[in-house]
Amino acid sequence: MTEATRYCTLPDPFPMRRGGQLHGARIAFETWGTLNPAADNAVLILTGMSPSAHAASHPDDPSPGWWDDIVGAGKPIDTRRWFVICVNSLGSCMGSTGPASIDPATGERYRLGFPELTLEDVAAAAHEVVRSLGIEKLRCVVGPSMGGMTALAHALNLPGASDHLMLISTAPHSLPFSIAIRSLQRELIRSDPAWNHGQYDDDSFPVTGMMLARKLGMTTYRSALEWRQRFARTRVPDNQRDPAPFSPEFAVESYLAYQAERFITRFDPNCYLYLSRAMDWFDVADYGGSVARGLARVRARSALVIGVETDLLFPIEQQEEIAEGLRDAGVSTHFADLPSIQGHDAFLVDTHRFGRVIGNYMASI
Amino acid sequence: MTEATRYCTLPDPFPMRRGGQLHGARIAFETWGTLNPAADNAVLILTGMSPSAHAASHPDDPSPGWWDDIVGAGKPIDTRRWFVICVNSLGSCMGSTGPASIDPATGERYRLGFPELTLEDVAAAAHEVVRSLGIEKLRCVVGPSMGGMTALAHALNLPGASDHLMLISTAPHSLPFSIAIRSLQRELIRSDPAWNHGQYDDDSFPVTGMMLARKLGMTTYRSALEWRQRFARTRVPDNQRDPAPFSPEFAVESYLAYQAERFITRFDPNCYLYLSRAMDWFDVADYGGSVARGLARVRARSALVIGVETDLLFPIEQQEEIAEGLRDAGVSTHFADLPSIQGHDAFLVDTHRFGRVIGNYMASI
Repeated sequence: MTEATRYCTLPDPFPMRRGGQLHGARIAFETWGTLNPAADNAVLILTGMSPSAHAASHPDDPSPGWWDDIVGAGKPIDTRRWFVICVNSLGSCMGSTGPASIDPATGERYRLGFPELTLEDVAAAAHEVVRSLGIEKLRCVVGPSMGGMTALAHALNLPGASDHLMLISTAPHSLPFSIAIRSLQRELIRSDPAWNHGQYDDDSFPVTGMMLARKLGMTTYRSALEWRQRFARTRVPDNQRDPAPFSPEFAVESYLAYQAERFITRFDPNCYLYLSRAMDWFDVADYGGSVARGLARVRARSALVIGVETDLLFPIEQQEEIAEGLRDAGVSTHFADLPSIQGHDAFLVDTHRFGRVIGNYMASI
Repeated sequence: MTEATRYCTLPDPFPMRRGGQLHGARIAFETWGTLNPAADNAVLILTGMSPSAHAASHPDDPSPGWWDDIVGAGKPIDTRRWFVICVNSLGSCMGSTGPASIDPATGERYRLGFPELTLEDVAAAAHEVVRSLGIEKLRCVVGPSMGGMTALAHALNLPGASDHLMLISTAPHSLPFSIAIRSLQRELIRSDPAWNHGQYDDDSFPVTGMMLARKLGMTTYRSALEWRQRFARTRVPDNQRDPAPFSPEFAVESYLAYQAERFITRFDPNCYLYLSRAMDWFDVADYGGSVARGLARVRARSALVIGVETDLLFPIEQQEEIAEGLRDAGVSTHFADLPSIQGHDAFLVDTHRFGRVIGNYMASI
C-alpha cells in the first residue's frame, strides 16, 4: 500500500456467496493510463494468489510492479491506450479487506471468523471497483493463475461485463494434484504450533509453517527443466554452509530458503488459507453441471487463452479445455501454447514470450 | 522382521565411505528359491527407500511382500529358476543396522551419531550378504528407485560382480527438483518440535513431521493423470468430515491422510533423513567426472533399463541417459519406456505391464 493505492468501499452489507456478509469492507486498487470520455478503454487485471494491486510502476509509486514488463507505456498492455485497473483480491492482505482486517463488529481482526471466501466473492468485489470508476463495460478482463479463475467467475456471474477475456495459466477448476499440493500447503501452516488456530500475532508468527508452504509452492511454480539448467547439482560453498546436520547443501535448497524468507514477511497466514481454499473450491462445472456447459454460458467477443507446457499446477490440458469450451460458446478464441521452461510462473518471468502474444492480442481488440 | 528374515553380520569394523565405521553391524535379508550347485543363479534385489527385505511372500512368512506380483514361483522373477535375495538397506530400520539401532559403544541408539550414509555403503553392505551366501558372481542385480541408484553404486564399486543389471525408475544422480522435494521432506521432519534433533522416543514421536513428509512424497510418487482418473473432484461425504476449519474435504486429501497414517508407524524418522540424503548425494559423475564417463566404467553383459513417462521424481530422460551410457560402455542394453499412468510408483502398481518386460528379460539371461 503506497501513494499509488486507491480504495473502493464495498456496498454495506456485502453478501458472501457461501453465507455471511461484510460491513465496511474495501478493495485496494491502482490504475494506470486515462479513462477515455466514452469510458470504453478499461482493462481489469485480476491477480494470482499473492500479488498486490501494484502490477506496474506508477507515477506515485515508481517501484517495479509484479508485471512491470507487461503493463506500462509502450508495453504489451499499453497504458497510453488503455486505462488499466489492478485490484488486490478480497480476502488478501495488501489493502483489501480479508481475514487480517479488523472486524468492525468486534474491533478485533477477523482471523477465522472471516466468512468463507470464494472466487465469486473476489470477482464481485473487484467489479465494485469497476462500477465505482463509472465504467459500464470493460474492454478486457485479464487473469493469470488464480486471477484467471476469478476472471471466469466474473464472466459467469456478470455476463457481457467485458468484451474480451485473457486467461493465462489458469484452470476451469482444480484437479486432485493441485488440490493435494494446496491442501498440504495449508496443513503446513496449520501444523505450525505458532499458527494457534489463527490467533497468532507479530511476536508469535507461524514463520516455519509459512516458509515450508512457500517452499512447497516454489517446487510447483517452476519446472524441473528450468531448475536443471539453473542449478544442476551446484553446491553451496562450504564456508557459507550452516554446520547443523541436514542443513541446505545444494544451491536449489538455498534458493528455496531465500525465496521463502522473502515471502513470509509479506503475506498473512490466515489470508493464505482462505485464498488457497477458494482456488480449490472454484468450479466452472457449478454453472450448469459440467465445465463445457459452464463455459457455454460465457458471453464475450473474443478470448486469448495462454498456457505453458511445463506447468505442473495448471497443466496445459486445462487451458486447452477452456479454449475449446469458449470456442463452442461462440467466443472467437486464440489458444497460445507456449514452450516456456519456467512452468506456472512463466507469465512472471518469460515476459518476452508472453509479451509478444499479449501485445498482439491487445492490439487486435 | 519375521520368521523369514535372516541376518548377515558385517565385517567389524565396517568402514563408511564418508568417514567413521560401524561395529557389530548387520543386514537383514530374505531369500527365495534355491542356490544351484554352481552358485550361478543368484539375483540380488536392492530396494527403494522404505521397503523391507520382504519382497514377496515366503514359506516362513506368507504375508504379501512389497513386490509380490513380480517375485515368486511362476512370476516374472521366477523363484523356481532363480535364487533371489532381497536386502533391507544399511541405514534402514527393518532389521538392518541404522540410526535407530543401538550403538555398541554407548548402549544407546545411534540417532544423529550414526556415520554419514551413502548409497555406496548400502551397496557394500548388501554385497556382504551375497558373499556370506558363497556367491562369487550374481546373475543379475535388480534395483527400482533408490535401489537402482544403489545398483549403480554396486556396479561401479564391484565391477563385474553381476553379469546383468535391471535398473527401474531410477537415476544416475538426483536433479534439483527431486533434491528440492527430498530436502523439503527432511525439513518437514526436522521442523516438528517432537523430532528434537533426533532425540525422540515412542512417547514423543514426530508424528506430524512424518505425516507431512509422507504426504509430500505421495504427491510426487504418483501422477496428476492417475489422480484425475481416480479422484477427480470427489468430496468426502459430509457425515465423514472433521468439522475443524480447513479439514480434508476432497477425496484426494483423505487418501493422502490415510496413506500417511499407514506409513508413520513403520518408519523411523532419523533413518528417513539418512536414506533421503544419501539419494541426494549419490552421483555417477563422481566416477570419472561425468555421468557418461561413470557409466562407461560399468562392466556387465546386458542391462534392462525401465522408465515411466509420468514419473516426476525420476523423469524418463534420466533412464534414457542411463541406457545410452551403458550402451556406450558396450553393455547390451534394452530400454523400456512404459506408458504407465502411476508415475514413480508404477513398478509397484502397474505390475502387469512391468511384469511382462521383466519376465522377458529374466528369460533371456
